[in-house]
Amino acid sequence: MPKVVLATRNAHKVPEISRILAGAGVPVDLVAVTEFPGVDDVEETGLTFAENALLKARAVAAATGLPALADDSGLAIDALGGMPGVFSARWAGVHGDDGANLRLVLAQLTSVPDDHRQAAFVCVAALALPDGTAWTEEGRVDGVVVRAPRGTNGFGYDPIFVPDGSALTTAELSPDEKDAISHRGRAFRAIAPHLAALPGA
Amino acid sequence: MPKVVLATRNAHKVPEISRILAGAGVPVDLVAVTEFPGVDDVEETGLTFAENALLKARAVAAATGLPALADDSGLAIDALGGMPGVFSARWAGVHGDDGANLRLVLAQLTSVPDDHRQAAFVCVAALALPDGTAWTEEGRVDGVVVRAPRGTNGFGYDPIFVPDGSALTTAELSPDEKDAISHRGRAFRAIAPHLAALPGA
Repeated sequence: MPKVVLATRNAHKVPEISRILAGAGVPVDLVAVTEFPGVDDVEETGLTFAENALLKARAVAAATGLPALADDSGLAIDALGGMPGVFSARWAGVHGDDGANLRLVLAQLTSVPDDHRQAAFVCVAALALPDGTAWTEEGRVDGVVVRAPRGTNGFGYDPIFVPDGSALTTAELSPDEKDAISHRGRAFRAIAPHLAALPGA
Repeated sequence: MPKVVLATRNAHKVPEISRILAGAGVPVDLVAVTEFPGVDDVEETGLTFAENALLKARAVAAATGLPALADDSGLAIDALGGMPGVFSARWAGVHGDDGANLRLVLAQLTSVPDDHRQAAFVCVAALALPDGTAWTEEGRVDGVVVRAPRGTNGFGYDPIFVPDGSALTTAELSPDEKDAISHRGRAFRAIAPHLAALPGA
């Protein structure tokens, strides 16, 4: 099993992504970047999910000398020109205030008619090697933004997003149901073949 | 001089747009829609400036039986996918809170590097006749969004927008200097020939 660093400070992502990759037939020894104390955070200055995922994966691969995985994801709303997009976690101006972000999106969309509320959860996964070689893969779930939050599972914009073909918001789906259609799952399943081709895999 | 209704509740726009049209050699007898008490506001449900300007002009022309002018305008920021765009006046969630809108845009752009802060003030002017015939014309001023407000003239996003070729924000320009490059001036000067072709002009 190749040792791969996951470029995230978010501890719950390590088991989630390990599970996704194992499910894709590519088990890896995934370690969080937090286990490398000298490695600092990279500022996410990119204007696309791919730019930010690459920034993080390349910086961590260079700093650790190991292959590195990273992702960037968010909600892209058609009526908002694809926003909040890369700004999803800090849409209301402060990083990580899920409630404020969600309320702001609903307020901005107040006048947007029901038939123009299409959106997608998008995730780009990046794999980078210490020499700078890198790959990206995108996963997405299409759906619509509803007018009021429903459900208590998940996080972020889950309570206001209804995937196409579902009557429930992603916050009303069970974790297993959500995983099955997840944009993150799709992106990391798509990156798995690149991992499988690494030396030692 | 043809009598034309201006579809706005904003009283200061009547002399401004009368002046622009007279300067373009097309004097019109411009009256505010507020002088027609039975005519209600139209909800701006459009997703583009042109859609909203047309919605307003067509509704007022139909309700008054006179040619009607309307405009919709806003700040389109490249890094925000063209937003706040049609949502410029209510970006922070409440209509017309200029300070909150401006602070939110600055917070959203915090991590966006100086060489990726391009934006444009855009205005679309619409002229509609009672029979539904309509024209639209766009005016724009390109520039960049700076990191802190400067200047006290103007309103809205003027304190954070520096037009290309200027060192000053549009809130640091005099009203005359701003008018000379204004997106609204450009849009209404472009609509003037359509007014000049009206019966009675």
